[in-house]
Amino acid sequence: MQPSSVKRNLRILVSNDDGITAPGIHALARELRSIGEVTVVAPDKQQSAVGHAITMNYPIRAIPFFAEGEFFGYAVEGTPADAVKLGVRFLLKDGRPDLVVSGINHGSNTAINIIYSGTVSAATEGTILGIPSMAVSLTTYGEADFSYAARLAARLARLVAEKGLPPGRLLNVNVPAIPEADIRGIRLTRQGSSTWDDTFDVRLDPANREYYWLKGRLNVTDIDPEADQIAVQEGYVSVTPIHYDLTDRGLLSEMETWGVDRLR
Amino acid sequence: MQPSSVKRNLRILVSNDDGITAPGIHALARELRSIGEVTVVAPDKQQSAVGHAITMNYPIRAIPFFAEGEFFGYAVEGTPADAVKLGVRFLLKDGRPDLVVSGINHGSNTAINIIYSGTVSAATEGTILGIPSMAVSLTTYGEADFSYAARLAARLARLVAEKGLPPGRLLNVNVPAIPEADIRGIRLTRQGSSTWDDTFDVRLDPANREYYWLKGRLNVTDIDPEADQIAVQEGYVSVTPIHYDLTDRGLLSEMETWGVDRLR
Repeated sequence: MQPSSVKRNLRILVSNDDGITAPGIHALARELRSIGEVTVVAPDKQQSAVGHAITMNYPIRAIPFFAEGEFFGYAVEGTPADAVKLGVRFLLKDGRPDLVVSGINHGSNTAINIIYSGTVSAATEGTILGIPSMAVSLTTYGEADFSYAARLAARLARLVAEKGLPPGRLLNVNVPAIPEADIRGIRLTRQGSSTWDDTFDVRLDPANREYYWLKGRLNVTDIDPEADQIAVQEGYVSVTPIHYDLTDRGLLSEMETWGVDRLR
Repeated sequence: MQPSSVKRNLRILVSNDDGITAPGIHALARELRSIGEVTVVAPDKQQSAVGHAITMNYPIRAIPFFAEGEFFGYAVEGTPADAVKLGVRFLLKDGRPDLVVSGINHGSNTAINIIYSGTVSAATEGTILGIPSMAVSLTTYGEADFSYAARLAARLARLVAEKGLPPGRLLNVNVPAIPEADIRGIRLTRQGSSTWDDTFDVRLDPANREYYWLKGRLNVTDIDPEADQIAVQEGYVSVTPIHYDLTDRGLLSEMETWGVDRLR
């Protein structure tokens, strides 16, 4: 495929989980417009840690959202997966997108965080709908400069458009929040296995009833440089190919000896 | 381990996504009480299709819930993953459970539904917290008799307690909603690859503004009898070992030739 034809025809659906007002999605949409036709369909408000939630018991709406007086995209009253589903199945009336790009998330989506991530969920929904998809996150919860991450996302998006992705597979990209000059490169990685040391803060409301607030920190137990979490800590952009076939074939074989079939 | 010691000491946390009032969790808790000490910690209301959502931006509460005048468990204002996390990290003050059992869901969690499932998410959270866990679903959205599924869940739970599960692995169990006499057996399965043919119903509110309602049906493309979806259709209980390491190692190798490292 010629780069010029890619540039002319590429149709990109952009979503996220931080909501349509978040700086990360504006930086991403701006850069992606240099490689294709961008439609933004994103949650109307912050939806972090919603996992792969979809809204079935309530209807959803999509409201045109304007930035600096211009139409920017559709604000969906729903989850990231809702936004992508509604975008692909209904709003993009002229045809299916060639790519779904989700982000740029304000915060890392490495290791166990992939499971909780609305950013990854939006890209997963794109993949379920048969569209090559990727999720992009910037690994800081503090002040964020999305410019390098957005430029890299556009380059990767173009590569994905050229190479294609096998059915059921997507890319999860994490960009270290360090100056561009300090980025050491891009590393193909696997999902790390670090999890959270979390606890609940116990507080009292004005009527003296207890309530609980989740707090914690990622307990980094990964050491392998091929783990996404270690790659970003070492100053590399991590690119992890993921899928949603959750079958554990190792345990499946092992369980053949359990006599499960005799349980009934 | 002697069955009698299992029976005496087993501590089981029970959760679900249909909420603490749902018949499926009452049937499950009743049967599990015959093999161990049960604590129910479940969402206070229906949480289907919430995926692996957790609540970080708001506090949560846990209210004692009574059934027929007796304490039944804790109703958590939150998601299934919240309930399990709060149960393990805070409410079960006497110690960690030996097992987490989630269900019995009213509706199947086979194929792509595993990704959206709050029932599976509760068990996944148990696994993340290092506890052998399983999710149990009954494959009907209509009238449901949970009695056989609950008895089977108890037998499987006991087997899991005896055999243990490797870290990061859990079981996803689906029970066909047919008379017990028609159940053909128990089959070890893999996650099917069927997805939804979904569309949005477009409706108008009283002020003539559009809103959208997700509808659809599972498009069964699986044919392999080892797929969970086919097993339950053929009258077998499906038992699928799953994990949450989403890395796709096949694509990871293939991408070595992409020159991703030269993108920067």
